[in-house]
Amino acid sequence: MSPDPVKTGLLLVGVRGSIGTTVLHGLEALRGGQAPTGLVTETPQFSNTDWADLGRFRVVGWDIGGDCHRAAEDLSRIGVLPADLLELCAGVRDRLNVSVAPGIPEPEDSNMADRASVDRLALSLPDAVQALRDDIRSWKQDEGMRRMVVVYLATAERQRKVPEEWLDESADPMELLKDAPHDLSRSVLYALAAIAEGVPFVNFTPAPGGSIPAVAGFAKRNGVPVLGNDGKTGETLIKTALAPMFRDRGLNVMAWEGYNMLGNRDGAALADPDRKAGKLANKSHVIHSILDSERVHSGVSIEFVPSLHDLKTAMDFVHFEGFLGAKMQLQFTWQASDSALAAPLVLDLARLALLAQERGEGGQLKAAASFFKDPLGVKDHDFHRQMDRLRAWVRHAAEPS
Amino acid sequence: MSPDPVKTGLLLVGVRGSIGTTVLHGLEALRGGQAPTGLVTETPQFSNTDWADLGRFRVVGWDIGGDCHRAAEDLSRIGVLPADLLELCAGVRDRLNVSVAPGIPEPEDSNMADRASVDRLALSLPDAVQALRDDIRSWKQDEGMRRMVVVYLATAERQRKVPEEWLDESADPMELLKDAPHDLSRSVLYALAAIAEGVPFVNFTPAPGGSIPAVAGFAKRNGVPVLGNDGKTGETLIKTALAPMFRDRGLNVMAWEGYNMLGNRDGAALADPDRKAGKLANKSHVIHSILDSERVHSGVSIEFVPSLHDLKTAMDFVHFEGFLGAKMQLQFTWQASDSALAAPLVLDLARLALLAQERGEGGQLKAAASFFKDPLGVKDHDFHRQMDRLRAWVRHAAEPS
Amino acid sequence: MSPDPVKTGLLLVGVRGSIGTTVLHGLEALRGGQAPTGLVTETPQFSNTDWADLGRFRVVGWDIGGDCHRAAEDLSRIGVLPADLLELCAGVRDRLNVSVAPGIPEPEDSNMADRASVDRLALSLPDAVQALRDDIRSWKQDEGMRRMVVVYLATAERQRKVPEEWLDESADPMELLKDAPHDLSRSVLYALAAIAEGVPFVNFTPAPGGSIPAVAGFAKRNGVPVLGNDGKTGETLIKTALAPMFRDRGLNVMAWEGYNMLGNRDGAALADPDRKAGKLANKSHVIHSILDSERVHSGVSIEFVPSLHDLKTAMDFVHFEGFLGAKMQLQFTWQASDSALAAPLVLDLARLALLAQERGEGGQLKAAASFFKDPLGVKDHDFHRQMDRLRAWVRHAAEPS
Amino acid sequence: MSPDPVKTGLLLVGVRGSIGTTVLHGLEALRGGQAPTGLVTETPQFSNTDWADLGRFRVVGWDIGGDCHRAAEDLSRIGVLPADLLELCAGVRDRLNVSVAPGIPEPEDSNMADRASVDRLALSLPDAVQALRDDIRSWKQDEGMRRMVVVYLATAERQRKVPEEWLDESADPMELLKDAPHDLSRSVLYALAAIAEGVPFVNFTPAPGGSIPAVAGFAKRNGVPVLGNDGKTGETLIKTALAPMFRDRGLNVMAWEGYNMLGNRDGAALADPDRKAGKLANKSHVIHSILDSERVHSGVSIEFVPSLHDLKTAMDFVHFEGFLGAKMQLQFTWQASDSALAAPLVLDLARLALLAQERGEGGQLKAAASFFKDPLGVKDHDFHRQMDRLRAWVRHAAEPS
Repeated sequence: MSPDPVKTGLLLVGVRGSIGTTVLHGLEALRGGQAPTGLVTETPQFSNTDWADLGRFRVVGWDIGGDCHRAAEDLSRIGVLPADLLELCAGVRDRLNVSVAPGIPEPEDSNMADRASVDRLALSLPDAVQALRDDIRSWKQDEGMRRMVVVYLATAERQRKVPEEWLDESADPMELLKDAPHDLSRSVLYALAAIAEGVPFVNFTPAPGGSIPAVAGFAKRNGVPVLGNDGKTGETLIKTALAPMFRDRGLNVMAWEGYNMLGNRDGAALADPDRKAGKLANKSHVIHSILDSERVHSGVSIEFVPSLHDLKTAMDFVHFEGFLGAKMQLQFTWQASDSALAAPLVLDLARLALLAQERGEGGQLKAAASFFKDPLGVKDHDFHRQMDRLRAWVRHAAEPS
Repeated sequence: MSPDPVKTGLLLVGVRGSIGTTVLHGLEALRGGQAPTGLVTETPQFSNTDWADLGRFRVVGWDIGGDCHRAAEDLSRIGVLPADLLELCAGVRDRLNVSVAPGIPEPEDSNMADRASVDRLALSLPDAVQALRDDIRSWKQDEGMRRMVVVYLATAERQRKVPEEWLDESADPMELLKDAPHDLSRSVLYALAAIAEGVPFVNFTPAPGGSIPAVAGFAKRNGVPVLGNDGKTGETLIKTALAPMFRDRGLNVMAWEGYNMLGNRDGAALADPDRKAGKLANKSHVIHSILDSERVHSGVSIEFVPSLHDLKTAMDFVHFEGFLGAKMQLQFTWQASDSALAAPLVLDLARLALLAQERGEGGQLKAAASFFKDPLGVKDHDFHRQMDRLRAWVRHAAEPS
Repeated sequence: MSPDPVKTGLLLVGVRGSIGTTVLHGLEALRGGQAPTGLVTETPQFSNTDWADLGRFRVVGWDIGGDCHRAAEDLSRIGVLPADLLELCAGVRDRLNVSVAPGIPEPEDSNMADRASVDRLALSLPDAVQALRDDIRSWKQDEGMRRMVVVYLATAERQRKVPEEWLDESADPMELLKDAPHDLSRSVLYALAAIAEGVPFVNFTPAPGGSIPAVAGFAKRNGVPVLGNDGKTGETLIKTALAPMFRDRGLNVMAWEGYNMLGNRDGAALADPDRKAGKLANKSHVIHSILDSERVHSGVSIEFVPSLHDLKTAMDFVHFEGFLGAKMQLQFTWQASDSALAAPLVLDLARLALLAQERGEGGQLKAAASFFKDPLGVKDHDFHRQMDRLRAWVRHAAEPS
Repeated sequence: MSPDPVKTGLLLVGVRGSIGTTVLHGLEALRGGQAPTGLVTETPQFSNTDWADLGRFRVVGWDIGGDCHRAAEDLSRIGVLPADLLELCAGVRDRLNVSVAPGIPEPEDSNMADRASVDRLALSLPDAVQALRDDIRSWKQDEGMRRMVVVYLATAERQRKVPEEWLDESADPMELLKDAPHDLSRSVLYALAAIAEGVPFVNFTPAPGGSIPAVAGFAKRNGVPVLGNDGKTGETLIKTALAPMFRDRGLNVMAWEGYNMLGNRDGAALADPDRKAGKLANKSHVIHSILDSERVHSGVSIEFVPSLHDLKTAMDFVHFEGFLGAKMQLQFTWQASDSALAAPLVLDLARLALLAQERGEGGQLKAAASFFKDPLGVKDHDFHRQMDRLRAWVRHAAEPS
């Protein structure tokens, strides 16, 4: 592949969190020759695609607090970041710390936010979005970035009602913003700032983002791709890879119970029932969708188990019926580092967003469905069909224009 | 769907075994209105296809021993056949018992075979095949069957060398038979008899059958479909449904260890290392094939655990590597009745074979790949791609000619 | 063992439920020569003990509704009761149906109760207890029972506050009854009736019963044994058998998460948060007790999964720390018929209660601790120490006086 | 506890292996204040015992090759040794490297041994034992050790026939040595050297050691304790903690299948069927012993899965029968660092051996049974009874004399 001289800005919301920190260090490791394990865009099926050069990615972003060094040390102690990589990247973290901009906390979280972020809470929503736009412009200028992507990695948001006037695709969200409730989803603020600046927006957490019609319409009119929602990294990935087999074999799934345990900041946040609700809705819906049946008993729970740290553990039990009513079962246990699963997908999604932008495809990018628990514009949760969709779209994009 | 007036003969090799007995009773249950759970051909995706009417299927076949009533009682006691169905079908079993023809045992199994089957062992191979052809003709005539399918359900065969001259697709197997070793795979004898009579042949057990070039060529020249090998019902099904997810996500599978336990006649037979070898080869190969890597440590074992009877239990452990070398794992346990999984697939395969024959497609039927651990003519073990292949083929077939 | 000529009345509260029905049929099966699998009192360690003869047990009892035949058919369909036993016992069920007395429902359950049981709800508490005593007397007389045991098998009760004056061991509960709240735990009513009639009382469900000081004191003063609470049949049994190993090896358990699924009437009842609370408290306490640490993260959940019926399924995850802080884990899945586990223990407990009564041991029987999740008078949940306690007590009891 | 001024030599056979290296570093960590997780002798139940002071332990020993630094780095990379501890102990490893004596390889392993160890292979057996005795004496003198323990940590030995004359307890093994086969178990050579020098001998690997009557008699006559065989660290530990519950509840275990996977040097060695045989015999025997039944189908397998390194993984399936023949099951998966489990037990056993010697108890120490898969002089494999035995013995020993 030809060298890509374009410098790309990867603008992460929650840049000092576990995923952000893993992305930061991972990019350095890839530059150092580490194998790109876990990157979809590096699998052989996409070897002919001219993806954005990860070697030219530069991480900046927003956060409402935290410390890059501390986050990295925590991830190293639990084995996600190798000790030598931690050491190697001290300077990279120093540089990042300098360039991080204050975030906009949810009102309920002001006590966890640093002073600069709390100050942003005092702004009107239009002013807050303007501040984010200013951040984007100054990073672009200061770093000489030729293109950028915003990836929303904030903690699972609390569920909030979307004001009715936002459900109109043709509405102008910048206008609506003036009268919107002050606790409007933060994902919307970042999405609007990104779109207004012509920067693709990827929503990796359970939050509305580009699923709100007024936001999606705005993106489409501006020719800016929006991707999301809610990264499909673990239990739901397995569910959407396995459930099609039950469907295709005519086996009658009676119950699919999923028990999730995790111990990181995301896990602690999910102790809040409001935040948990959004996540669980995305996780349980997929089974009914793939099996085309509301009769499946599909329970999902998430428990905060501190000792697990980043090691997300899911135990699932599938009870199904075969020929002549024979009762059968499948159980599985999945154990994997949440951050190590998510980080490479963030890079994949940035590449997809850039490719879509290059091709002039604004609005919800359906081709990215396989990456999300609640894919924008796509009702089919079958992982394999979603991958077919991705392969078809990439292949087309890869053709000489 | 229009009523199908054609009476169809389902000729099972090993008709008194667990699968054969479940097929026999299952057909009655379906006639009685039981939901067709576990039948692929009855899933909504194929609702527009004009499949052969199961209500017109009539089971006959060969066996080297056994007793239909005894087999059914055993299956009822362990919960595979409901008690009322067992009672209901007493007459059906009586009728079957009368029409069963003697089988041709492997030479090593003559002590387990009834007298009539041992007598067939004494025949030369051409005479043995002729005897099978005579059976087919007399069933056809006696029962007024307009079409037939032979399904090979014998116990896993011992691995034997295929004589070199059989590797030539253009050779005439009926000629080769005259000088073939007397312990030639029984699957070949039944396949040749079926093909010579213009009857499709389905090989559901680990045995060469239609994979031998001389047999496949003979089938092609005669315009008779052959399907196989080795039904994909349990652990391997899960493997081939899950492994594509690891591949598509760029996750590096380091080890996939599978432990199988079963307690039925098939399990007892597999205590014989020669028989086990064939089965294990089919089971472990799929992982290397899908992941396109020989470096995966892929162990497979099968243990005979008598107390499990027909309840096949598989425990698998998958060790894989994600981003930055993070170690992750997936374990699963699958528990399902071997016979209840296999029986509906036998009916599916009979329907596929008949459809292929109707369309004039002789030789190895690649569209049936998703049903087999070692599919004829197909190297791709990815279950989802195999299903795509099936859907495409059926759709085409379903079109008005 | 010498033949025991004494006819013994087994008085079950909830006699038409799953456990009661399994006990009823199980006794017939044992009379018919079925091996006494699952009975503690029949294990070799107790072979020298002169237990009450199960052949002379006669089941009667109370229920607020239900139908013996229906309950038995349900249990047969899901494989708990063999089909031939079901048929064999039709007469036994007929006879039982005649002798069942109306129960006393919880006030909230009056809509699920039959008319005679609802009538009992209208009685004052002293009158209700008197009615139960009259039942006991008339059974005794009608059946010529020389001795009796009451076993409380009602569905998990709602948690209710115990009135303060009942916490005094020397109080007279028959007096307190006059001013007690009308929704007083039903377990207390049955316990008082039994004790007043000199009949031992066993509480097998999550309910206070003999744990209330005024009840325990009454039993002690009357020389009547009381046993309970809450049968230890499944997940908690495993926990209390395994946790001592972690303690004795100095391994630091950080988290023990237990997920329970069941689909029977008990499961449906537990959908009520009040009922669930009592059950969960008993289940999670044992870990902290055995490991002598409140720091263990010990979650327990119970889900109602209808398709499982009586097949209780528990998935547990244990996260622990070894030498130098190494993280380790144990997972287990337990699947067993709830009724088949409980029924033999009911017979064991009746035998223990009778032995205690014979020896003149009134009040809480500590020797029965190994049978219960919340053992009366015993703080040690270690199953093996509880068994040591049982063995020592039985051995002593078995000695010639 | 009073400070113990006595310097204690811990003489490890295979001192540069994974367990030896973990012991070496663990002692330093304990001196540095690390919590003694995983040490039985540090649990509250033994808090009144005057154990040997671990702060005064000094590790020396034999090995046929290896490098202390390399072994430690490997263990650190897979997370068994914390990075800071690895660094801290560089000097300790340097010092150890100097004092390691050449070992005596099995004849088949001469190609894996260093030159000095190969030289020892050339010695007659009496000369080899003399060389080991000389090593012990010179360590004692050089280091000023007041007491010592030898712990045999070599890789699982090949199974070999024990010469008949060694089965006589009164025989003099030093005499027998002269005519013994040259491939006599290495565990015997080290045991004899230790006993002759009055040093207790602990056999932690699958090898005969102190189980040979002539060796045991020699130890008894010399008043030297011998402990063993084969450390009970993982799957077998769970088995012996759980099986007693099935026995005590009268549940009929029909099958207990255990699948073990590991990837360390021990795992590689077990690819050798001769070595594997000894290990498997110890592992499968315990179930028959505890359940007092030869009818249990008890399979055990060990697979070498390189990617797991030291993370021993066991998947077990238990099939059992309850009341009225109801089929039930328990599955478990155990994952733990082999070295981190074994190392603290090595320290425990050294303390037990020293306490026994202090009390003048020579010969097989039955009180140590709970630590071993094949305990010397003890037939009872019930972990809890073995712990009772230990507690009773320690309590007695702890009393004022």
